Amino acid sequence: MTFPIVGVIGAGQLARMMVPPAIDLGIYLTLFASDSKDSAAQIAQHVVGNLNETDSVLKWARTCDVVTFEHEQIPQELILAMQAEGIKVFPSASAFSYSQNKLLMRAKMADLNLPNPRWEKYEGGEVSIEFPLIAKSVTGGYDGRGVFLISSAEELVALYRQINSPLLIEEKLNFDYEIAVMVARSSHGQAATWAPTLTVQGDGICTQTVTPIPDISEELSSRASHIALTIAQGIDLVGVMAVEIFVVGDQLIINELALRPHNSGHWSIEGSVTSQFEQHLRAVLDLPLGDTSMVAPYAVMGNVIGIETDKSGDLYRPYLHLMARNPRLRIHQYMKQLRPGRKVGHVTLLGDDLLHLRSEVRHAVDYLSGAIDE
Amino acid sequence: MTFPIVGVIGAGQLARMMVPPAIDLGIYLTLFASDSKDSAAQIAQHVVGNLNETDSVLKWARTCDVVTFEHEQIPQELILAMQAEGIKVFPSASAFSYSQNKLLMRAKMADLNLPNPRWEKYEGGEVSIEFPLIAKSVTGGYDGRGVFLISSAEELVALYRQINSPLLIEEKLNFDYEIAVMVARSSHGQAATWAPTLTVQGDGICTQTVTPIPDISEELSSRASHIALTIAQGIDLVGVMAVEIFVVGDQLIINELALRPHNSGHWSIEGSVTSQFEQHLRAVLDLPLGDTSMVAPYAVMGNVIGIETDKSGDLYRPYLHLMARNPRLRIHQYMKQLRPGRKVGHVTLLGDDLLHLRSEVRHAVDYLSGAIDE
Repeated sequence: MTFPIVGVIGAGQLARMMVPPAIDLGIYLTLFASDSKDSAAQIAQHVVGNLNETDSVLKWARTCDVVTFEHEQIPQELILAMQAEGIKVFPSASAFSYSQNKLLMRAKMADLNLPNPRWEKYEGGEVSIEFPLIAKSVTGGYDGRGVFLISSAEELVALYRQINSPLLIEEKLNFDYEIAVMVARSSHGQAATWAPTLTVQGDGICTQTVTPIPDISEELSSRASHIALTIAQGIDLVGVMAVEIFVVGDQLIINELALRPHNSGHWSIEGSVTSQFEQHLRAVLDLPLGDTSMVAPYAVMGNVIGIETDKSGDLYRPYLHLMARNPRLRIHQYMKQLRPGRKVGHVTLLGDDLLHLRSEVRHAVDYLSGAIDE
Repeated sequence: MTFPIVGVIGAGQLARMMVPPAIDLGIYLTLFASDSKDSAAQIAQHVVGNLNETDSVLKWARTCDVVTFEHEQIPQELILAMQAEGIKVFPSASAFSYSQNKLLMRAKMADLNLPNPRWEKYEGGEVSIEFPLIAKSVTGGYDGRGVFLISSAEELVALYRQINSPLLIEEKLNFDYEIAVMVARSSHGQAATWAPTLTVQGDGICTQTVTPIPDISEELSSRASHIALTIAQGIDLVGVMAVEIFVVGDQLIINELALRPHNSGHWSIEGSVTSQFEQHLRAVLDLPLGDTSMVAPYAVMGNVIGIETDKSGDLYRPYLHLMARNPRLRIHQYMKQLRPGRKVGHVTLLGDDLLHLRSEVRHAVDYLSGAIDE
């Protein structure tokens, strides 16, 4: 048999959701986990190790036909060390740098003639962007962490002293809504997007997605897809990427890139012929990409996010109520401890009655997280 | 956390396909495998043991919240021994006997006033059914094994001497086609069927299924579903069951029962809101059942069956051709050695152009099994 071994660095829920399509296709997965209790390590073959110990990562990587990632917290030197040994790593160090370094990303978008907000590098001194503005850590931020709303020059200076390294500062946009385009590209250069997704945020974290975006013009939607395809080619992406975009009137302005399967694409597990997780495996293995058509008029996804509560946080008991209430509800458990602000699962509903889908999804996530009393 | 542990006896492809929905729902699976190389043992937690060693099965079963099966070759005494200890086992020994013993099954169908072919128990002597007739081993047969076409009294006597135990004999029906109804039932008594399925046979083994059955009358289809629901209730089924039925004109005649997820329901993985594998887990855990609606007008499934060939039997290399040819094709690998007559995988296509779907599925299985030269 010549079925390949794909190594995944990271064993959170994104790696967990790669497991079912790998089982279907007969692709062997092995994870580099930080702990055997990690979401995906509970149900897939893995080694436990530390990403700062390059030798142990290399030893593991040599057992894989291709190595990929499920999060951004990968030292660049590690990726380069694997590449130097001839280990196939996707996305490559160079592509991945645009996901890891927000200054590089902004410069690349400008190079590609794609729409950035006004931005500049801040290392103290005068700024040409008016307050309030957005300041971002150049590396290491996600889910709203490392992103700061700054009202004055004094605040900016204080933040800079605290962080003690250059910041990316950006104009604060009064956007109408936020969307994301998921795109996949193989080393062959074959690329495909899914229908752009509306991402509804609360406290800097995505709470619900709606696909396709309701009431968006065909022109705007296809412009968003075109941006994602241009970036994928421009950075020589191999794998799946999320392009987060602000919509301001009929303008599209790029917010963030994530070079991995992403929360904005979870709906594709049931909502598309090919899920983002299967597509990621196909792309890094240089297999032909699958069809990204939707299988229903609308797919609504809701994140189950831990809240402050004195309840036990039992996530299984709500199944009785939720499955009885809506037999079409698709539940995904990440098997992580419930903690305030942490994504511990998601639910998806497909159908055509958008108002109903959205309210059912909202009910389900509130019920699972314990926000609704029983 | 109170997520339950489901024990599955058997680790073939049916257990393998229970793993993805268990991952989604956070249900822990543990398999009782005969070998670590078994299809499902390759990718799921398991113990290796022998079903004839009751003590080792019991020791494993005590670690589970509920125990179920993926095949019929389970000694009744073993099921009874688990039940005697208060271990929850579904289907129960009594329900399972109708799947294991074809004489009991025929008698039960007669009790329930459901349509049998003419049948009798044969232990030598005169027969009232005309030749040619069908003789069946009372226990242990599947996929056409243990089923014999008998042309004369001499042949029957010879078979009886060889088998050396009572036979079930049945009239040979000149049926128009064969169908199957998948049905699920929970201990609560909630039951649901999927759309009845056309099962296309070759050499006593199913090669393709089409769901729903093309050109069947609403009345016949709902009568088939009603038969399945009547049996499910009549035998106190808990879990998923396949009811195989012959269609003769406007008559429906029950062929076989299988009290487990079944080849006839593989299409439901992509073709239905809830797959038979998820539904089986829900049923044995007494969770509310999921929606069994289809997500496309037609679902066509083709079995990849090993053929006599001098080829290497590489099942991964065809991916390049197949995925490029049809990006909608869903491939399922069981990761079993390719042997003539053995089911080693299946493919599914959803859509509305039935002729096209059937010919694409036929091409894909021929290409995978090596029947088409490259």
